[in-house]
Amino acid sequence: MTPEEFRRWGHEAVDWAADYLSYPEHYPVLPPVEPGGLLAALPENAPEEGEPFETILADFQNRIVPGITHWNHPGFFGYFSVTGSPPGVLAELLAATLNNNGMLWKTGPAATELEQRTLAWLLNWLGLPRDWFGIIFDTASTSTLHALAAARLHAHPATRVDGAPPDLVVYTSEQAHSSVEKGAIALGMGQRNVRKIPTDDAFRMQPGSLREAIAADRAAGLRPCCIVATVGTTSTTSIDPVPEIAAIARETGIWLHVDAAYGGAAAVAEEYRHVLDGCEQADSLVVNPHKWLGTPVDLSAFYTRRPEVLREAFSLLPDYLRTAEEDRAVNFMEYGVPLGRRFRSLKLWFVMRAYGRKTVADILRQQIAWARELAAEIAAHPDFEVSAPAPLSLVCFRMRGSDDANRALLDRVNASGDVLLSHTVLRGRFVLRLAIGNWATRRNDVQHAWSLVRQAAAAR
Amino acid sequence: MTPEEFRRWGHEAVDWAADYLSYPEHYPVLPPVEPGGLLAALPENAPEEGEPFETILADFQNRIVPGITHWNHPGFFGYFSVTGSPPGVLAELLAATLNNNGMLWKTGPAATELEQRTLAWLLNWLGLPRDWFGIIFDTASTSTLHALAAARLHAHPATRVDGAPPDLVVYTSEQAHSSVEKGAIALGMGQRNVRKIPTDDAFRMQPGSLREAIAADRAAGLRPCCIVATVGTTSTTSIDPVPEIAAIARETGIWLHVDAAYGGAAAVAEEYRHVLDGCEQADSLVVNPHKWLGTPVDLSAFYTRRPEVLREAFSLLPDYLRTAEEDRAVNFMEYGVPLGRRFRSLKLWFVMRAYGRKTVADILRQQIAWARELAAEIAAHPDFEVSAPAPLSLVCFRMRGSDDANRALLDRVNASGDVLLSHTVLRGRFVLRLAIGNWATRRNDVQHAWSLVRQAAAAR
Repeated sequence: MTPEEFRRWGHEAVDWAADYLSYPEHYPVLPPVEPGGLLAALPENAPEEGEPFETILADFQNRIVPGITHWNHPGFFGYFSVTGSPPGVLAELLAATLNNNGMLWKTGPAATELEQRTLAWLLNWLGLPRDWFGIIFDTASTSTLHALAAARLHAHPATRVDGAPPDLVVYTSEQAHSSVEKGAIALGMGQRNVRKIPTDDAFRMQPGSLREAIAADRAAGLRPCCIVATVGTTSTTSIDPVPEIAAIARETGIWLHVDAAYGGAAAVAEEYRHVLDGCEQADSLVVNPHKWLGTPVDLSAFYTRRPEVLREAFSLLPDYLRTAEEDRAVNFMEYGVPLGRRFRSLKLWFVMRAYGRKTVADILRQQIAWARELAAEIAAHPDFEVSAPAPLSLVCFRMRGSDDANRALLDRVNASGDVLLSHTVLRGRFVLRLAIGNWATRRNDVQHAWSLVRQAAAAR
Repeated sequence: MTPEEFRRWGHEAVDWAADYLSYPEHYPVLPPVEPGGLLAALPENAPEEGEPFETILADFQNRIVPGITHWNHPGFFGYFSVTGSPPGVLAELLAATLNNNGMLWKTGPAATELEQRTLAWLLNWLGLPRDWFGIIFDTASTSTLHALAAARLHAHPATRVDGAPPDLVVYTSEQAHSSVEKGAIALGMGQRNVRKIPTDDAFRMQPGSLREAIAADRAAGLRPCCIVATVGTTSTTSIDPVPEIAAIARETGIWLHVDAAYGGAAAVAEEYRHVLDGCEQADSLVVNPHKWLGTPVDLSAFYTRRPEVLREAFSLLPDYLRTAEEDRAVNFMEYGVPLGRRFRSLKLWFVMRAYGRKTVADILRQQIAWARELAAEIAAHPDFEVSAPAPLSLVCFRMRGSDDANRALLDRVNASGDVLLSHTVLRGRFVLRLAIGNWATRRNDVQHAWSLVRQAAAAR
């Protein structure tokens, strides 16, 4: 494809994208497809000869798009809703055009320094210490794995050479994301060394139980290594009491990592800055701009106050990667598993500048308000109950009745094509989750979802 | 930004990208910037109010692009050259527009199945077994970490629960990529358990030494766990004798992983299919379409014949991620660390279809031919020597003289702005690397680089 053909097809692609973004609700949120459907429709082998781009673009529109779950749909309320805002999309186009690999400062000076600056901007928006070291990974799961690796090295410096000792313990709440446990498994710390601390009525880690667990492990000859607190758990967006947890971490000398992948974003709005109270004492923290901050997937921002520990955990500089600038510049490849690095900071830069903090804060506070309004309506309805406090933009609820009835309710609502809700299990009971987070969602969309839920409940 | 504004700015961005792609040599390959330059030029804080997109785009063009190392420049011969081909760039635009997160089949049916199909297409192009399980990760370093984790679980199933035992040994060559060692460190297997097997005159792992090392470790009570062979090492593109290594792996029951991140691509051309000889016996293999196969970063294709082992190493299914389709569809999040998944297969699909196998094969064989031609010219020159065999598209060479003289030579050549060469150290000697791999590179560019080298050598 010549640059002039690229221009022509680029304009076509942009027009398609503009049309799509102006009306994503043209498609059902969940596509009406069965496993294997696309596989059956696609050729067994790639072509020997190149195909006209027209055909490829048509196949994209006719075969791929109808089989996509539309995370852009304003009725997408499952998992955590995300937003690839238009400025972020254009940044991805430009980043792919440059195709820069910023593994070293030398191989991407602007990419390296823009990553440093945008991550510092984000700290400022969140009210966190500006001098923290930031690095972008693909997902929060990867960020948390890096936090655990740093904590492990901090607790046991010989890990790097000798391997993971069998006695390092990780503490998190029973509501924490599965990535904490997965990270411990991957790092060879052992699933049995992950303690899931009980939570209170609001699904928040109980500091007293944490303290007891640490003491019991120490008494048993084990070494507490890392506490992972969560600001905005996946099931309910509960916010662990980080100030109390941080005090325990300080007293006991244990690394504190905060998973604020979703919830941390709320701190951009002044009145929700408190969600990050205590986090300034953390050793590391992750927040995902690709969740609630308008940035297309993937962009997970990982911070640590102890970059030297992270670097010691991961740095290997073979001859072929040595540069003259290594004492004067950050080489991000020294701070993690991946060597190659896509130019991800560009989209964060575009999004933060195109919207500005005030607009982003307005979007978030509005979505939180809609969630609270919805929670109040559900609580007031005789046939429904709110299943957990809704401190942010997620409402967990269920119809009064059996788990099976609620499962069927969820399926009926999602079959509408208008909305996607997801589910979780709280204290053994099946619960529906309605997560507001797509910037295209309006109050009407939330109200429509609630209306579909009531209709489906009444029709059963 | 409204969809109509997106349309307008999207057209602007495409026009800029088309101009850039038609003339990337407008910029020096290595930008004339110093560490901290961009940081000093950017505001300390993100704006409170949104800024006009015009300003952002202008800053991108005026501040970012001049500070970028231009991997698109036809004179980029450093590290491994890469190509973000125009169809791949457009796919990235569309993927960012959809903003799909294919963590589960349900959250991205088309993304999941297109990943399955394109990775099977690639197996077919490479002449590898079609029934291997494939999954996309960001980089080869991440893929290799997953290979080591699977090998670890295979050797010691209790790893998942109990943690990494201290006695598992990984074997690779002294020329292997640093990611093997980094992966072992990250997984808690211990740097001291990585054996770097000596290489022969052509920098290939010596099977005899491998066999001895395994026997010695077993005699010492250690447990050999994984052999990592390389097809196309980073320093010289040497190709380990995989058939012999595979035979050892089979005899000893050790997991064989092949790092074919760069070199594997050559197998797309029939006459170079032999570079993957023996790889059909591997337990896992990585090849990076984002290196030599026209796909924008990042896209690393990881394959394994034993997906059940990979899944056992990484699967955790919390309640909130359970779906009705989990027995009938692949949920890629079960097979690795990352949960969220960008829709990366789209660009591979676009690239494979837009070019077709024959065109890709022609590009690769042409680049290999240019490298061989260059190697012959260097070998024939009285002031230079070729430092390693050039089986693929990389030539390692040095000027006769000291390491310092060669370092200075490299700096002078790179200061031209016309080319970027990188370096490595072979048998203790500093060596220049000229890696052909950018699809925009022409024979003239290679010849020009060689001419610059000769001029710089003569001018010293």
